[in-house]
Amino acid sequence: MVRFILIFLFCWQDSLSVFGQKPVLVYQTDFGVKDGAVAAMKGVAYGVSPLLAQYDLSHEIPPYDIWQAAYRLRQTVPYWPAGTVFVSVVDPGVGSARRSVIAKLKTGQFIVTPDNGTLTLLALEIGMDEVRLLEEERNRLPGSSASYTFHGRDLYAYTAARLAAGRISFAAIGPLVPAETVVKIPFQAARREGKLLRGNIPVLDPQYGNIWTNIPLQLVQDFGVRYGDPLLVTVRKEGQQVYRDTVLFGNTFSVVPVGKPVAYANSLLNFSLGINQGNFAQEFKVGSGPGWDLVIEKVTGLKR
Amino acid sequence: MVRFILIFLFCWQDSLSVFGQKPVLVYQTDFGVKDGAVAAMKGVAYGVSPLLAQYDLSHEIPPYDIWQAAYRLRQTVPYWPAGTVFVSVVDPGVGSARRSVIAKLKTGQFIVTPDNGTLTLLALEIGMDEVRLLEEERNRLPGSSASYTFHGRDLYAYTAARLAAGRISFAAIGPLVPAETVVKIPFQAARREGKLLRGNIPVLDPQYGNIWTNIPLQLVQDFGVRYGDPLLVTVRKEGQQVYRDTVLFGNTFSVVPVGKPVAYANSLLNFSLGINQGNFAQEFKVGSGPGWDLVIEKVTGLKR
Amino acid sequence: MVRFILIFLFCWQDSLSVFGQKPVLVYQTDFGVKDGAVAAMKGVAYGVSPLLAQYDLSHEIPPYDIWQAAYRLRQTVPYWPAGTVFVSVVDPGVGSARRSVIAKLKTGQFIVTPDNGTLTLLALEIGMDEVRLLEEERNRLPGSSASYTFHGRDLYAYTAARLAAGRISFAAIGPLVPAETVVKIPFQAARREGKLLRGNIPVLDPQYGNIWTNIPLQLVQDFGVRYGDPLLVTVRKEGQQVYRDTVLFGNTFSVVPVGKPVAYANSLLNFSLGINQGNFAQEFKVGSGPGWDLVIEKVTGLKR
Repeated sequence: MVRFILIFLFCWQDSLSVFGQKPVLVYQTDFGVKDGAVAAMKGVAYGVSPLLAQYDLSHEIPPYDIWQAAYRLRQTVPYWPAGTVFVSVVDPGVGSARRSVIAKLKTGQFIVTPDNGTLTLLALEIGMDEVRLLEEERNRLPGSSASYTFHGRDLYAYTAARLAAGRISFAAIGPLVPAETVVKIPFQAARREGKLLRGNIPVLDPQYGNIWTNIPLQLVQDFGVRYGDPLLVTVRKEGQQVYRDTVLFGNTFSVVPVGKPVAYANSLLNFSLGINQGNFAQEFKVGSGPGWDLVIEKVTGLKR
Repeated sequence: MVRFILIFLFCWQDSLSVFGQKPVLVYQTDFGVKDGAVAAMKGVAYGVSPLLAQYDLSHEIPPYDIWQAAYRLRQTVPYWPAGTVFVSVVDPGVGSARRSVIAKLKTGQFIVTPDNGTLTLLALEIGMDEVRLLEEERNRLPGSSASYTFHGRDLYAYTAARLAAGRISFAAIGPLVPAETVVKIPFQAARREGKLLRGNIPVLDPQYGNIWTNIPLQLVQDFGVRYGDPLLVTVRKEGQQVYRDTVLFGNTFSVVPVGKPVAYANSLLNFSLGINQGNFAQEFKVGSGPGWDLVIEKVTGLKR
Repeated sequence: MVRFILIFLFCWQDSLSVFGQKPVLVYQTDFGVKDGAVAAMKGVAYGVSPLLAQYDLSHEIPPYDIWQAAYRLRQTVPYWPAGTVFVSVVDPGVGSARRSVIAKLKTGQFIVTPDNGTLTLLALEIGMDEVRLLEEERNRLPGSSASYTFHGRDLYAYTAARLAAGRISFAAIGPLVPAETVVKIPFQAARREGKLLRGNIPVLDPQYGNIWTNIPLQLVQDFGVRYGDPLLVTVRKEGQQVYRDTVLFGNTFSVVPVGKPVAYANSLLNFSLGINQGNFAQEFKVGSGPGWDLVIEKVTGLKR
């Protein structure tokens, strides 16, 4: 009988998490997967609760590239439900005085991260409900205090797992941090300038060599562009022209022949450039980052 | 009391899936894991049901390489139980008129894929029980309709998750597709030609540089070859000889010294070539694809 | 009523594993993830029990690099709880006479591996409770007997899953193997020699290019070194000096300017060298392996 009650209690405890949400962690790092660093983090979290689901966003963020970390979170977080806890460890300042925080987004996901700009895009485009200081002293994995350099394992994964599994409340993690003090990386927003649309190339789509901009489809449509329209596109690096040509704006790559450039809206509904079954970035030597910008002009009906 | 009943109902619902089969998705794409595309797919599936198990076959299929997608599925699917739902997104024609389908194999696994030849080898070697059209209109992730280019996330992962979790029946996904209309990639089957065995090199074993053919061990044995026999092996690319030498047919790499070539049956029980602790493909510049073929001849007892 | 009892029995069976430990497998191989080999192993394990959790340590161990396999296990295993079953397949001798074993560590984790030296560091630094022979005849996946070359799938993953899921007891796997007969790779231990500390560079931290030694922080501290002290560090390959310079010993990278070398204790609490936001291994052409050693000397207060 006692055993039955125990079993029942277990079922109850287990199901609690699932009625609302089975607890889940999603990791993003620049660690790569050649060594055991990621697996050590997951082992720590598994030790907190074997019932946690653990997923990977990417461990191939270029080393120390905070901007890309910010961008990949922005790309992925909205597809995970409220209550998901993300752990992002792209942390050039590990061991320094930079603080660690946990942000709760307005859409209910949590992000555990060093406060180094990783939250820039989520804060602007989704919004943060509350940010709390991840206090090291009270949140470290027991027995880990001699290691100063692996916060990802000893502090972030451990605390994220305890938060997801309900072992600690969000409020108990640390005091509130004013949202306006959270570090933001400056970047050029997309905008219309008279007869131009101007924007930035924050990242490439590395697998296919497509060029992703921060110009929303909505802005392109409000500018009067329709699928099938030709556009004059200019790409510049630090003001130097790198590419300038007329490109068709299509709702799919196959509106142009194989090997030809096409403009389209990517999976984040931002204006993008690609080559049908080819690699635009490689062919035209286009990169990404704050120094890369892109201008869109309509091709008028004038004969030439 | 109400709480207890709710808990019981939850346990019941959860256990349903496990009595037969805990629902599971397995993904194959050419997306790589440098950005958030795969994680977005998994987030969508997790949002459908947090109880789904989600695994990866590979995300490193060479971009647009449908033939390799077909081969990797053939290599892996038989090791997963009936009811497993595979999502394969190697899709050069995304956004074009190519249709999307879900195949139920004779062995009970499901494959969600663009109908572009990805099913070629499974259809021939395992057989398809039923194929249904994945109708976009009724199966899309709600709210995703503005994105034309990410079917993997908005249509495939979402529908696969609903199918695995029992939220939709196979029949409700779309009308039946005649199996003979499913796209097949032509390829040369392995065959005996008098005193020769002839076959194709569909893929390499990329990690070790072994050469995998489509010549079954059974055919080699029926040809009269035994472990320990020397074989004269010729490899050609588009008819040009690339490699020709006598190789021992062994049941393990260590029948030859380190650094020496060996013929063996790979994990799919197909005739293969390797170098003991070396890289055959690199050393002899051998590749794979429809243009690469291989001929096996017995070495007769004649003195030379 | 029968259905209710069945459900209750299921809940009971499922919960059994979780009261102590939800069963979990962790994989390490040199297979890479470009083909379906890893997914085939996971499918086999999933077929044994869909309730197993399955994680990856790494599949990017350099091909046949047993020493690195040993090191990565040592780095990761302690962060997973007792009962975790690791499957390590770095196996240059697959198909040869080398035996397969399962070790139970003193800390309760299990390691399924070829007996080729992979257990060297765990045996020395954690200790093995019991080692058993993994007898092929009675532990193979049914129906797999024709394949000699994929032990990872047909023997290791299958048996590991059965062990983790409680389908077979540790004792039933095979007879005890005397711990002293388990293969060990010889390597130079860290030691103090008068006014020097001498040690080996077993691996690099491949993502960042940091140099990891086997000299424990404790030994460095007992030698009288404190954070902030300058140290004279010499790196040699086969006795030839590769690097020699004074480096600050810091508790974080940011004690030195960006681009400057720093000595620190890594996440395993071993003496290491890095460059703040740079790549030490690349800049100074330092590698790892048995032939690489490192000497630490204190910089005395003498003026120069």
